[in-house]
Amino acid sequence: MARPHVVIVGAGFGGLATAKALHRAPVDVTLVDRHNFHTFQPLLYQVATSGLASADVAYPVRGIVARQANLAFRQATVIGADLEGRIVHLHHDDHDVADLPFDHLVVAAGATANTFGIPGVDRHGFPLYNLADAVRLRNHVLERFEAAEARPALVDDGALTFVVVGGGPTGVEVAGALTELFHRVLRRDLPRLPVERARVVLVEMQDQLLAPFRAPSQRHALETLTERGVEVRLGAQVARVRADRVVLDDGEELAAHTLVWAAGVQANPLGRALGLATGRAGRIVVGADLQVPGRPGVWAIGDVAAIASGGRDGELLPQLAPVAIQSGRFVGAQIAAATTGRAPATSFRYRDKGTMATIGRSRAVAELPLGIRLWGLPAWLAWLGLHLVMLAGFRNRISVFANWAWNWLTYDRGPRLIFRSGPRRAG
Amino acid sequence: MARPHVVIVGAGFGGLATAKALHRAPVDVTLVDRHNFHTFQPLLYQVATSGLASADVAYPVRGIVARQANLAFRQATVIGADLEGRIVHLHHDDHDVADLPFDHLVVAAGATANTFGIPGVDRHGFPLYNLADAVRLRNHVLERFEAAEARPALVDDGALTFVVVGGGPTGVEVAGALTELFHRVLRRDLPRLPVERARVVLVEMQDQLLAPFRAPSQRHALETLTERGVEVRLGAQVARVRADRVVLDDGEELAAHTLVWAAGVQANPLGRALGLATGRAGRIVVGADLQVPGRPGVWAIGDVAAIASGGRDGELLPQLAPVAIQSGRFVGAQIAAATTGRAPATSFRYRDKGTMATIGRSRAVAELPLGIRLWGLPAWLAWLGLHLVMLAGFRNRISVFANWAWNWLTYDRGPRLIFRSGPRRAG
Repeated sequence: MARPHVVIVGAGFGGLATAKALHRAPVDVTLVDRHNFHTFQPLLYQVATSGLASADVAYPVRGIVARQANLAFRQATVIGADLEGRIVHLHHDDHDVADLPFDHLVVAAGATANTFGIPGVDRHGFPLYNLADAVRLRNHVLERFEAAEARPALVDDGALTFVVVGGGPTGVEVAGALTELFHRVLRRDLPRLPVERARVVLVEMQDQLLAPFRAPSQRHALETLTERGVEVRLGAQVARVRADRVVLDDGEELAAHTLVWAAGVQANPLGRALGLATGRAGRIVVGADLQVPGRPGVWAIGDVAAIASGGRDGELLPQLAPVAIQSGRFVGAQIAAATTGRAPATSFRYRDKGTMATIGRSRAVAELPLGIRLWGLPAWLAWLGLHLVMLAGFRNRISVFANWAWNWLTYDRGPRLIFRSGPRRAG
Repeated sequence: MARPHVVIVGAGFGGLATAKALHRAPVDVTLVDRHNFHTFQPLLYQVATSGLASADVAYPVRGIVARQANLAFRQATVIGADLEGRIVHLHHDDHDVADLPFDHLVVAAGATANTFGIPGVDRHGFPLYNLADAVRLRNHVLERFEAAEARPALVDDGALTFVVVGGGPTGVEVAGALTELFHRVLRRDLPRLPVERARVVLVEMQDQLLAPFRAPSQRHALETLTERGVEVRLGAQVARVRADRVVLDDGEELAAHTLVWAAGVQANPLGRALGLATGRAGRIVVGADLQVPGRPGVWAIGDVAAIASGGRDGELLPQLAPVAIQSGRFVGAQIAAATTGRAPATSFRYRDKGTMATIGRSRAVAELPLGIRLWGLPAWLAWLGLHLVMLAGFRNRISVFANWAWNWLTYDRGPRLIFRSGPRRAG
């Protein structure tokens, strides 16, 4: 009898966790991703702000796959499925559609930016969710400074004003890293430009930053960012955006060439493309065992899944790496149990191990279990250590660590490159 | 009286050498390049073969410029000049044309691939002269393997056959690095694919590889490449190329999806755009003092210049980094002398300090002054040391060294990523 075939869609934190949890199971696993690398999303903001090179946060999926005998990789995009016939339809980059049969299908396709229909954000906003986003923002930021040096009038036009929308961890991290890049690095690079006129404006709808954190951490973040020159606008929303203007809901207009969109995500639209029921922000509806109701053998995990928190009012778990990893492991174990005749667990339980966010050089906030809360340098060191451990690949760890040490000691940012690799060649 | 203004076009080896030689001169210098980084061209082949990340061989020009008080940088493309009026016309990436007046103009714009009009090479060939070329080739090579794994029939179609044209240092280095990538790294990555069927064919018009080297070095290169599985075709030329076919001049057809073009360069067409007289392969005609005849204050250096070797028959110096560096330093000194009333040197003399080429892991050839010739491991170590010293930027040196150590010890290639950063956003 052929071994059951498990198809995992997405090589993010969730998909990789599922694959690893199936290491010893009597199944064949195919991991499908449109990229040949896993992206370490928590550090994308450092690529966008010239602190790390793109290769530092990307790890070749085949380097992981080669270590697991029952695991294969396919670089392709999933464009649909015949769920009755148990087949997913793949599209390869430069040739036809192919079919891949499955016994279990794990949808781990992640999320994309949610612009909430605010006019102009789709067109002019810079999201920060994948590696291409990060490189695009890096190029754009550096180009604004080059343009302003060549034409100083562009400073008044908003070339050096950067609006970051969203006061969650990503927004706080980007705002902190941008102000550091400008005032520590680009000020030296562009001695003829009034770099002190560069502005970072952080816009947050709620009345505090870092909503999921406790009040003292929120205050620490606000004070640190403000000290470092970030203009924080609490209780404000973006009404509309043009290439050189950001209009807030109170009517204030900011002359700004850059809008970083960190205000929210929605599920990857794959759920809908597969004909699965989706809930809030397009997230796939799953049962307590993370299986799609009425679709045995079809599972959804991580950002793409609407996983109940177990709390009141049908609240959902947040779209964070630890949820993806834990839900991925759980589904891997479920499938392993199903194929070996063991009893599966009945429901997924998320264990919150805490949250962290950096606020630029030597500052962070961390809230850990047992009521442990860290701020400032200790939190920052904890953040560094955790992220080094989480990074896939020893080479990437060495490289990131060396870069961090270098950046910290010298205030340098090596990879401040304006570089587009461009399209494939004709033919 | 205003200080004389020196405009240097191109931030390659030559342009940077000129700028540095003007460090103490009573002049203002503007370095113009279309990229905001200097590219370390000798290591591009390692980016193309996944040994180094793109950021390892690129160094931000402003990191160099900030250390020299009389030096400014402008990211722009030179599109023409009014040589009588002493003005160059610049084009900035996203706005209008600007004028830049000069007293001295140093053209250091480098070279591009010369396809000698062979049908199909322009369209299907992969040159290896700038960073985008290297990333494009890396993406293409890795995609061939992904495609072949998804559709095994593509192996017969030529997906895993790579033709490298040109047996000079670049061709030898690429061929050696490709065969190593395939048989040491991708063989592990793609256990289901018959990677042993991957072919590297090196095509050289002459009867030996590495024309400028002596016969024993040439034999060492040929033997090492052959041992490692490269098929070397001496005395052969490419007649025409299609997306999946390379036809040689003796009528042999190779089913191959990839043609790496390392068979020759021509000068950047800027010389012609400026209305300067050009000689062989578009190189700008210069006098013995590297000034353009009849155009006092207009100089050309490095690959873009037709610099006489001083030998018989009007032979020209080769288009190599040491020539660019030495000619750049010479012109910097000439300009410094002219602006301080010292007597300029009358003619440029190139001092040949030797040549080196790697042939993959632990093997190289080096021919140094005083008749010192090295092969094998000693040559390879000499090559590593020299290139580390030549690299701009301490951070890049650390990163490249760490990557080399890692690659050598583990046979790993970290940055084997298929990644296109894509276009700028609309708006």
